[in-house]
Amino acid sequence: MSLCRLVVTCPDRVGIVARVSSFIAEKGGSITEANQHSDLETGRFFMRYEVEARDIGIDSDAFRQAFATIAEEFDMQWQWRDGAQKRRRLMIMVSKESHCLVDLLYRWSAGELDCDIAGVISNHDDLRSVVEWHGIDYHHIPVLSDNKATAFADIEKAIEENDADTIVLARYMQIIPPSLCERYSGQIINIHHSFLPSFAGARPYHQAHTRGVKLIGATCHYVTRELDAGPIIEQDIQRVTHCHTTSDLVRLGRDIEKSVLARGVRWHLQDRVLIDGNKTVVFS
Amino acid sequence: MSLCRLVVTCPDRVGIVARVSSFIAEKGGSITEANQHSDLETGRFFMRYEVEARDIGIDSDAFRQAFATIAEEFDMQWQWRDGAQKRRRLMIMVSKESHCLVDLLYRWSAGELDCDIAGVISNHDDLRSVVEWHGIDYHHIPVLSDNKATAFADIEKAIEENDADTIVLARYMQIIPPSLCERYSGQIINIHHSFLPSFAGARPYHQAHTRGVKLIGATCHYVTRELDAGPIIEQDIQRVTHCHTTSDLVRLGRDIEKSVLARGVRWHLQDRVLIDGNKTVVFS
Amino acid sequence: MSLCRLVVTCPDRVGIVARVSSFIAEKGGSITEANQHSDLETGRFFMRYEVEARDIGIDSDAFRQAFATIAEEFDMQWQWRDGAQKRRRLMIMVSKESHCLVDLLYRWSAGELDCDIAGVISNHDDLRSVVEWHGIDYHHIPVLSDNKATAFADIEKAIEENDADTIVLARYMQIIPPSLCERYSGQIINIHHSFLPSFAGARPYHQAHTRGVKLIGATCHYVTRELDAGPIIEQDIQRVTHCHTTSDLVRLGRDIEKSVLARGVRWHLQDRVLIDGNKTVVFS
Amino acid sequence: MSLCRLVVTCPDRVGIVARVSSFIAEKGGSITEANQHSDLETGRFFMRYEVEARDIGIDSDAFRQAFATIAEEFDMQWQWRDGAQKRRRLMIMVSKESHCLVDLLYRWSAGELDCDIAGVISNHDDLRSVVEWHGIDYHHIPVLSDNKATAFADIEKAIEENDADTIVLARYMQIIPPSLCERYSGQIINIHHSFLPSFAGARPYHQAHTRGVKLIGATCHYVTRELDAGPIIEQDIQRVTHCHTTSDLVRLGRDIEKSVLARGVRWHLQDRVLIDGNKTVVFS
Repeated sequence: MSLCRLVVTCPDRVGIVARVSSFIAEKGGSITEANQHSDLETGRFFMRYEVEARDIGIDSDAFRQAFATIAEEFDMQWQWRDGAQKRRRLMIMVSKESHCLVDLLYRWSAGELDCDIAGVISNHDDLRSVVEWHGIDYHHIPVLSDNKATAFADIEKAIEENDADTIVLARYMQIIPPSLCERYSGQIINIHHSFLPSFAGARPYHQAHTRGVKLIGATCHYVTRELDAGPIIEQDIQRVTHCHTTSDLVRLGRDIEKSVLARGVRWHLQDRVLIDGNKTVVFS
Repeated sequence: MSLCRLVVTCPDRVGIVARVSSFIAEKGGSITEANQHSDLETGRFFMRYEVEARDIGIDSDAFRQAFATIAEEFDMQWQWRDGAQKRRRLMIMVSKESHCLVDLLYRWSAGELDCDIAGVISNHDDLRSVVEWHGIDYHHIPVLSDNKATAFADIEKAIEENDADTIVLARYMQIIPPSLCERYSGQIINIHHSFLPSFAGARPYHQAHTRGVKLIGATCHYVTRELDAGPIIEQDIQRVTHCHTTSDLVRLGRDIEKSVLARGVRWHLQDRVLIDGNKTVVFS
Repeated sequence: MSLCRLVVTCPDRVGIVARVSSFIAEKGGSITEANQHSDLETGRFFMRYEVEARDIGIDSDAFRQAFATIAEEFDMQWQWRDGAQKRRRLMIMVSKESHCLVDLLYRWSAGELDCDIAGVISNHDDLRSVVEWHGIDYHHIPVLSDNKATAFADIEKAIEENDADTIVLARYMQIIPPSLCERYSGQIINIHHSFLPSFAGARPYHQAHTRGVKLIGATCHYVTRELDAGPIIEQDIQRVTHCHTTSDLVRLGRDIEKSVLARGVRWHLQDRVLIDGNKTVVFS
Repeated sequence: MSLCRLVVTCPDRVGIVARVSSFIAEKGGSITEANQHSDLETGRFFMRYEVEARDIGIDSDAFRQAFATIAEEFDMQWQWRDGAQKRRRLMIMVSKESHCLVDLLYRWSAGELDCDIAGVISNHDDLRSVVEWHGIDYHHIPVLSDNKATAFADIEKAIEENDADTIVLARYMQIIPPSLCERYSGQIINIHHSFLPSFAGARPYHQAHTRGVKLIGATCHYVTRELDAGPIIEQDIQRVTHCHTTSDLVRLGRDIEKSVLARGVRWHLQDRVLIDGNKTVVFS
């Protein structure tokens, strides 16, 4: 093993850190980055270790088997991710707006996102050429008012067949059906083009312009059954003035959307985002 | 006359700037700062000039009389504020939280706010000593569930008798009655401790903590009959994380509230905030 | 004529605005955006008007001829840019880092930059494919220690032959010779990857890491003979911590560089940046 | 014992976390907040634990004695701070500018700063009244060109006699002599009114205005023998434009200075700032 990652969530109690860090030290691992958090309201404990594991004499399967005893004792949800094993596979879903897609593809090709791209799904054919130029498969699956069930069955199949484990809605303007939300719970990341909970739903920049806010924002969150209401991963804002028209807001907002989504996706891929009820713990 | 200020709102049409700037030039005035804005949706035009008026041979009353012809022609709402004349008089209203009050008093004593302080009104007696230390009158007017009408009559009287023309709600936790909102329309400035329209109403930091937002904010706005829904003057935010408890949000929020309110009040006193329906034009 | 733009710099004195705005009104133009600034230290006056000119009965040449009398009287440097005439032509120069180039090309193709791309010049051949995919000519002109004079002669020729009027150094890691700086004075825009004047020169992120700063930045400026010392157009920063390695700073810095350069170029193309000695007036 | 704090710096090696966290668990302590950092360049390890210690059966002296064995084994610099023991004592030093002083006193009285105020030292008598109103001793010790040695001897005596362990230079415009810098190494906090390393030395806002920067900043750092070159604790910035005069920069800068200094002092008092050569590790 080389660089590995241990992520743990469990009920908080005395001795977790001692027990886990001792276990890793005994096996020969060296903790190079450590984060932990106790949620005093829910009594949950969250932990993430980056471990230099080259001196651990056993392989990841054996390590996991040995760790399972501790995990059971503390009632942990946990994963041990081995850097040498399979990378995460991202399915990106888009409509017609290209800015988030192009930004993600650029960051991916520049090595900022530690994943493979399993493909791009769109309800329109507009963005095919830039996707294929990157050597990535483009799936055009139109979603119409009278074919939603079929279309989302095709989408689910495309996700499955391409072995994707993370789905990024990079300005995908369709509502994801509840069954898909639940099957990929905690694995679907959306960018909403407002500072949630303000301006949920449609046309948030128009809403923002009408209200006369002095800052616009974007929100990256996990998708749940309730629209625009899932756990927030990251948000950011941009100052605007009375001079800005709605189309200025749209233009300025694109930059926030890109950077907020990119940070959210990067942190998710690095297992830095732990879900805590309807909130997130982000070890950034 | 020395430094003066001309503020104009009117229906937009060709020739306003030419006419007004020519008038000022003819009279001998020199424009040292100029701002203007056309709202394409409402068709309204907004303008603010700072004028070095020492070479204008007539006094402000004569100037106003001469300007009235242009104003009528263009259907203007306007004011000519003479720097040598009476300063604005601020009535500050507070409950028990002192941070915005103390910040405003400090900025006022440091010369950052071009106004007189007409007094401080509070429904509690807690903040008397710091106010009186600044040589300012403190009016303790308790607002109880069974005396609201009387209390607000006393408040209105205190505003009148102290000749206040601007009212700043510096974390005043009572709802202002509609009659007062209307009498002092565009003259009552509130600080709300959230990034409106998110978390209007009570306990916004608790709401923010429950929703798990990654940024908290504050909003300075004019008070209208509808709670927390008046024209927004200024907003700002502060980044927070899963580590922050609600009381951390309250503490961090104090700094945003102070600076957002101070900027809003300063701009209002400098006639930089022009109301445009339920929005503002801010020539900052 | 349709949308036009008037930009003026001259010694400050009473009556400029009156004279110019009256002239435009007489000709039938409507000012849709106006900005002006008086530099009290240098006594210079700066002005920029956006003019809706469809009701001006004469063409741009006739307009310029008529305006020349005013310009002479007030000793103005000025230009009247007619939106229907030729767009500015951008020559982008790069080395091996692609982020600023790709960002500019994306914004250009999305319509955010009002210009034509005259071509891309690089001392390396690495970025040819992405440039040519956009249908833009790529000029590979290697600059070596022993061919600098020849190489820059070729570069100058490429700029000339492609009729470029604005040169953007989008992480071009060579020093521009003084003769080129002077020939294209006020037309060469550079992005420097630090918050100038901190960390001028080579390897600014390494310098920043060594000094232990808590914010890193980027600076967009006009190029002059003195390295990294020309008039600053725009700057921005990003928070960093002790956790960030130099390569983290490089990664995070890319996002600041992209957005700072894009804003600077956009404002330059809109004639919003006026040079005032070694500073800029930016009517953003 | 109730809430305690363990801060450790030592050469990095495998097993530190395991050893320390096991020790705390064995004694009955519960870690409520944990931070750690490995500096890969210097090979140093940094750690800070907040410990709920009410179930630790021994007192702090006994705890320290028991921990000393581990500390020696790992060659640690360390401290165990017992929340029930003596608070830190702050000596604030000022000249004539009051904003940082007033801000610190307000935050202290609002409970944001966990310390006692040992007194205020100034080379001028101007700020006596606001200090004494808070019930704090004011030491007027003029520093003149011909009495520096005597004056700083008096200052050192005032620090000693008032049992101060932390010195905050809240816009104290005198240079601290090297002997004092060394005696209180890592205990003297300064606010410099620029974004260091830009504009070190005198009149930074004038320097910033002359250079035409688009952002101004402030820097909180530990004082060392070399002027404005000590380890940086915190920095922040504020956007400015060509409209701002030097005195506007001074006014806007006051707000950054206040908040940057307050954060730096707060983190220092919470033992969140660990010195790492000429840099800092800040567990904020």
